Amino acid sequence: MNTTHNAPHIVKAFSEELEQLTADVAAMGGLAESMVRDALHAATSRDGDLADEVRQRDAQVDQMQRDIEKKIIRLLALRQPIAQDLRVCISALKIVADLERVGDLAKSIARRVHTLNASEPTALNSAVERMGRVVQSHLHQVLDAYATGEASRAVAVWERDDDVDEHYNALFRDLVTAMREDGSMIEPGAHLLFIAKNLERIGDHATNIAEVVHYLVTGQELTADRPRGPRPETS
Amino acid sequence: MNTTHNAPHIVKAFSEELEQLTADVAAMGGLAESMVRDALHAATSRDGDLADEVRQRDAQVDQMQRDIEKKIIRLLALRQPIAQDLRVCISALKIVADLERVGDLAKSIARRVHTLNASEPTALNSAVERMGRVVQSHLHQVLDAYATGEASRAVAVWERDDDVDEHYNALFRDLVTAMREDGSMIEPGAHLLFIAKNLERIGDHATNIAEVVHYLVTGQELTADRPRGPRPETS
Repeated sequence: MNTTHNAPHIVKAFSEELEQLTADVAAMGGLAESMVRDALHAATSRDGDLADEVRQRDAQVDQMQRDIEKKIIRLLALRQPIAQDLRVCISALKIVADLERVGDLAKSIARRVHTLNASEPTALNSAVERMGRVVQSHLHQVLDAYATGEASRAVAVWERDDDVDEHYNALFRDLVTAMREDGSMIEPGAHLLFIAKNLERIGDHATNIAEVVHYLVTGQELTADRPRGPRPETS
Repeated sequence: MNTTHNAPHIVKAFSEELEQLTADVAAMGGLAESMVRDALHAATSRDGDLADEVRQRDAQVDQMQRDIEKKIIRLLALRQPIAQDLRVCISALKIVADLERVGDLAKSIARRVHTLNASEPTALNSAVERMGRVVQSHLHQVLDAYATGEASRAVAVWERDDDVDEHYNALFRDLVTAMREDGSMIEPGAHLLFIAKNLERIGDHATNIAEVVHYLVTGQELTADRPRGPRPETS
């Protein structure tokens, strides 16, 4: 091993770099979270300006991922971390990949706002809002668990992945029914289906992040299958 | 740096390990490709048995990802690679993450086969088949580019990402029209929409892999925005 690793001032600088890395990932998480929140608000209130603003924010998330990845590759090359330090780097690499996808999905929700109008049934709107709240809460909790290093909190989210699927399945059924009853609902209904699907996928990324946090904190994988209800629609 | 890196027999073993890693990723790519091919065949021929078989194959892809990740983390810790060797490791880590998602998406297509029946218009079936062929060709070419280290071939796929979007947008319009004209098409139509969306996303993963291959071979990022046609539906 590189013996300069043991020089105290270098060790201190390295631990600071790792702390900064974790802070950078958390900041990217905060931005991705804000995109999900605002995309949902834009969708349920049909706010086109907010939707445009969310779409623009995605470039920032992408740039953060690229910057963090570069930083990690530099750390791996120069510091050659092992054990826990290596886990910090690998976990950051995986989490930013998930967050980049979360940003994409929020952008995708925002892009659909202009296809909706005020005529969709209020009940559907409320169902999307409810599902959105569950997904946002999952994402927020795993990012908190990451920042604070609480594996148990991450596992709690991981075990509740089913809640999101249940919301999604109910919404799928309601949307298909609404589309059957009213032909003018078919196109907006298809977009609402994709919004619901995007929310479900954001939930999946929160679950992935929970697995990474568990690995980061404990060094162990969460390999058991997640509890799953029936998923006829989800697939 | 760890001076044992320079001992010839260790260097040889390390380069062999990296070659094996690349071969493992290529094998995982072959399995993911077979899932996409068979899921599409199952969907367009309504073959439930083949669909079930594809769904079962996903666990194998997931296991391959876990095994390869473990191998990479061990390589990073024990070999502390730099420069090109580090890029081989990071690229493998990123590609297996994409391939794992490709497997999930193929499984998702397979899961929807039972919701379809023989009554959907042949034209829609053919459109799904055509889109599937384009996506499969992109995936195959980037995996070939990875195995052979041909950056230019990867870039060629990256530049043709638009083809997939065009297929998707056309299919979206045709499906919405079919659902409007025939109420009994609404539920299978919704599932076909998701199948098309899943194909589009498999295409996105092929594009991601193209970017990784470019980085692996050249050390440079493909940062320019991809050429994009209008994407009203895609989002």
